[in-house]
Amino acid sequence: MISVGFIGIGNMGGPMVQNLLKAGHAVTVFDVNEAAYAPLLDAGAVAATTALDAAAGVDVVISMLPNDKIVGELYLGEAGLIAKLQSRPILIDCSTVSAEIVRKVFQAAEERGFPFLDAPVSGGVMGARAGTLSFMVGGEKAVVEDASIVLQAMGKRVFHAGESGAGQIAKMCNNMLAAVLMAGTAEALALGSRNGVDAAALTEIINHSTGCNFMSEKWNPWPGVLPDVPSSHGYQGGFQVALMTKDLGLAVSNAQLHGAAIPLGSLVRNLLMLYQSQDAQAAKLDLSSIQRFFAPWLKAD
Amino acid sequence: MISVGFIGIGNMGGPMVQNLLKAGHAVTVFDVNEAAYAPLLDAGAVAATTALDAAAGVDVVISMLPNDKIVGELYLGEAGLIAKLQSRPILIDCSTVSAEIVRKVFQAAEERGFPFLDAPVSGGVMGARAGTLSFMVGGEKAVVEDASIVLQAMGKRVFHAGESGAGQIAKMCNNMLAAVLMAGTAEALALGSRNGVDAAALTEIINHSTGCNFMSEKWNPWPGVLPDVPSSHGYQGGFQVALMTKDLGLAVSNAQLHGAAIPLGSLVRNLLMLYQSQDAQAAKLDLSSIQRFFAPWLKAD
Amino acid sequence: MISVGFIGIGNMGGPMVQNLLKAGHAVTVFDVNEAAYAPLLDAGAVAATTALDAAAGVDVVISMLPNDKIVGELYLGEAGLIAKLQSRPILIDCSTVSAEIVRKVFQAAEERGFPFLDAPVSGGVMGARAGTLSFMVGGEKAVVEDASIVLQAMGKRVFHAGESGAGQIAKMCNNMLAAVLMAGTAEALALGSRNGVDAAALTEIINHSTGCNFMSEKWNPWPGVLPDVPSSHGYQGGFQVALMTKDLGLAVSNAQLHGAAIPLGSLVRNLLMLYQSQDAQAAKLDLSSIQRFFAPWLKAD
Amino acid sequence: MISVGFIGIGNMGGPMVQNLLKAGHAVTVFDVNEAAYAPLLDAGAVAATTALDAAAGVDVVISMLPNDKIVGELYLGEAGLIAKLQSRPILIDCSTVSAEIVRKVFQAAEERGFPFLDAPVSGGVMGARAGTLSFMVGGEKAVVEDASIVLQAMGKRVFHAGESGAGQIAKMCNNMLAAVLMAGTAEALALGSRNGVDAAALTEIINHSTGCNFMSEKWNPWPGVLPDVPSSHGYQGGFQVALMTKDLGLAVSNAQLHGAAIPLGSLVRNLLMLYQSQDAQAAKLDLSSIQRFFAPWLKAD
Repeated sequence: MISVGFIGIGNMGGPMVQNLLKAGHAVTVFDVNEAAYAPLLDAGAVAATTALDAAAGVDVVISMLPNDKIVGELYLGEAGLIAKLQSRPILIDCSTVSAEIVRKVFQAAEERGFPFLDAPVSGGVMGARAGTLSFMVGGEKAVVEDASIVLQAMGKRVFHAGESGAGQIAKMCNNMLAAVLMAGTAEALALGSRNGVDAAALTEIINHSTGCNFMSEKWNPWPGVLPDVPSSHGYQGGFQVALMTKDLGLAVSNAQLHGAAIPLGSLVRNLLMLYQSQDAQAAKLDLSSIQRFFAPWLKAD
Repeated sequence: MISVGFIGIGNMGGPMVQNLLKAGHAVTVFDVNEAAYAPLLDAGAVAATTALDAAAGVDVVISMLPNDKIVGELYLGEAGLIAKLQSRPILIDCSTVSAEIVRKVFQAAEERGFPFLDAPVSGGVMGARAGTLSFMVGGEKAVVEDASIVLQAMGKRVFHAGESGAGQIAKMCNNMLAAVLMAGTAEALALGSRNGVDAAALTEIINHSTGCNFMSEKWNPWPGVLPDVPSSHGYQGGFQVALMTKDLGLAVSNAQLHGAAIPLGSLVRNLLMLYQSQDAQAAKLDLSSIQRFFAPWLKAD
Repeated sequence: MISVGFIGIGNMGGPMVQNLLKAGHAVTVFDVNEAAYAPLLDAGAVAATTALDAAAGVDVVISMLPNDKIVGELYLGEAGLIAKLQSRPILIDCSTVSAEIVRKVFQAAEERGFPFLDAPVSGGVMGARAGTLSFMVGGEKAVVEDASIVLQAMGKRVFHAGESGAGQIAKMCNNMLAAVLMAGTAEALALGSRNGVDAAALTEIINHSTGCNFMSEKWNPWPGVLPDVPSSHGYQGGFQVALMTKDLGLAVSNAQLHGAAIPLGSLVRNLLMLYQSQDAQAAKLDLSSIQRFFAPWLKAD
Repeated sequence: MISVGFIGIGNMGGPMVQNLLKAGHAVTVFDVNEAAYAPLLDAGAVAATTALDAAAGVDVVISMLPNDKIVGELYLGEAGLIAKLQSRPILIDCSTVSAEIVRKVFQAAEERGFPFLDAPVSGGVMGARAGTLSFMVGGEKAVVEDASIVLQAMGKRVFHAGESGAGQIAKMCNNMLAAVLMAGTAEALALGSRNGVDAAALTEIINHSTGCNFMSEKWNPWPGVLPDVPSSHGYQGGFQVALMTKDLGLAVSNAQLHGAAIPLGSLVRNLLMLYQSQDAQAAKLDLSSIQRFFAPWLKAD
């Protein structure tokens, strides 16, 4: 049994705590939103009244937070964990934030003797609930190994991407590519459809050929091609357009910083902006709804 | 045993004839290039001196030709097959050409009582040799079934994409998407690399996540990530940049005709043009060499 | 007084004939649309019953036709002008078509002893009426000089762009650039507006700085910035989105033929397609209405 | 005579001070680079040893600094002007930075009773020397009027763009559009050239038609079309590619913040990145050298 302090118990963090508890670990939780506590306390978690309390004396601290600013305050603030914690738990940030902020936290942590990992996840809320998340981890290999029992309680795969920040970079690159795959698949299916070719027949061909990709095969954007995906249920659920727009923003900012050309990622980001500006509901729909932007006749269905 | 007249016995057609012969079919061949005959005659094919001779009296005619113009002449010319053939073999055009030309041929064929299929292939020269091509077929279902014995002698999969022209459309859409996948994968790997993340580690993560695609998994553009792909052998072999540029040209022309937006396909086509204009060798290299355009430091390796 | 045979007397050709007549030239006209004749006959033109009749015995033949196919038939058909005309007038094609077709006509004309010019115009229907068209002319310099009296009767500027086809190329390049200017201006004004900067104030600054261009200055896409432009009248009139889409199509096809990269022109073409697919009225509105695609809140005004 | 404290006397600030002195104003200067002082002291400026000293007791403070961070420190730091100045001079920041930072400075200034303007310039080093800069000014109208004597000593035009931050937004929008004009013009000239049309002839036509823009007319990217521009002198001087890349970065970041689509600006930014990654010298060349990326055969000239 490992003792874990968990900070940030929202849509993602909550189910992750549930899986830690199921695996028999002791979890102390903190969130600024009081409504988030109840289901976890019922399941055996202990409530803390501050982040520092949640982290005090535990073996591992895990944070799951919305943005750079809040991550920075938690770890680097004057009253933050690195400044104030007496013990030296492994610190694991699972938030999706910039590589820059996690590298800053890593440096501060290292100077004060804390092991620190960036470990953003893929798999979404569904994966968090099912305990099937993938962790993309940046940091020292030995620390990743030490942390793996805890991570595997919440997910099925742990990838060591490289040094500190590499977890964020890997997630950022993967998600940028995922957005390109989705837009590219939607564009191809719409072109086929305009030529009278059935989207399901075209998908089958693509899936057995060089165009095969995660989206065509498992998250197909054309309504009715796959039964249990957002496109077959009015594009509800899944991964919201607004969230992917945010993730692409991380890639665009990183590319600026590093002098990288990302013409496809940039184009897809702009297409998502145009799509959202034409359609007030788009931001909340699944990413695959970009299909409607290429094939507007689908809206009437 | 089926008798086949095969017109166009170049890099693709030659090995396809070999596989027909191996399967026990009788093949009469024609090509404007006399040098193409010898290996096929050695293997048991019969030489014809004109396309019409090759097609006379056979059960099935197969053509494998370079462009719309030559396909048009073969079938629609005043001295072409549809005007002059006495018998009514199944006509199968395996060339990669526009849907418009094959629909024209289909109409003319139908009026004169010929069954006609468009059946472009994927799999390249390697697939032609190994007999593992995929056929994407447009035309009537019953004809596709009649033709399937012959097609399966040359490939492992036959997909019925829809009505006449649908085979070409399916190939065009798949190849456009494949080009987007390759450029997107190369862009993502270059961004990761600029951030210090190892391309092999990043590829492994992508392949287990939402960015997974044919290129990341089976045709990875980063040198050394996969052992037996063009990127690990100086981008030699594979599918030439110039050929993909031609295929994207078919998609661009089709999109114009049908009022379709293909922003990603168009962008990739332009990136391939810019890449080729900077690097005199690019046209002959494998498509995955677009990686060098995003990561020019690879050239020095 | 010069005798002119004029073929194609629609929205553009009609007013051009009026200006030729005003300048004292004798004009024989032909069109497949009988309704087009009346106003010109009233103004002194003579009707012909075939294109060949209109061209017989005149000093100069001018054609103003919708596409490559019709231009090809007029000049290159078996019963076309080059095959059948006894005399050798100067042939001037003012249509906006591909450089390829006019070069074909030029070659055939040259072989048979006809001087031939491609002379597409800019200025639109308004310019045709006002006699203020610009002619972009390809062909031999001496022929351009011979033709200039006639051209100047219909326009105010005659530019010799180069050899045969160069007139079409110049118009194609100019129009592609114009589309980029319009989309770029609309994008910049929308970005300013989202930041709370008044479009008129921003336009004034741009017009005195490095962003100044024909669109910002004379065809401003933001409603109300300029008084007498389509954007201030519901985007009615002007240069229709559908026509610009066609012109960009010529550029895209030409770029494919010549291996040229035109990333901006291609992107704008795709943006126009997406815009038209979202908004059923867009095709008939002025090009400047692309502003609405970048600033959808304008629609409600 | 007005007393001015000038902070940041580099390539731009130095000549601006010279023009203030010529107009008879008293100028106290500060810079972290000691080598910058000598020519200004010779011309009558007074040296200060800190920024605060330069600003103490003057009528107007002008800053010309490289980035958000340094501007923030000067005005908002604990020992910065707003915290420490006893008097209440007009504060004018002429740096090209984000609208966000200048709005922060404006708010802090307003709370403490300082009038503050953002007043970035266009015209470059040449304009700074000649006293022909344009100022794009954000802030209260009355303050702009009060500041205009000083601004007009350094430039020929003062535009009031709107409220605080509007000066930066106007410059950002203009420069993004300028980059699009340049890339679009270069693309069009390259397409014409590939078709055999002379760039000078094509430019003349464009400049009399709807493609006319600042770049085609005054900063033409094709070597030899205009005599006194960077393209005719090996792309030396002018406005460096690296600087435009930075300015486009401001636009990209702003668009992310405001949910704006800027597909053309984003594409040009990516093209500039690709251009720079192919050519080690590109960053230091004039923006118009993007012509070489579209027409690589120019390099050999």
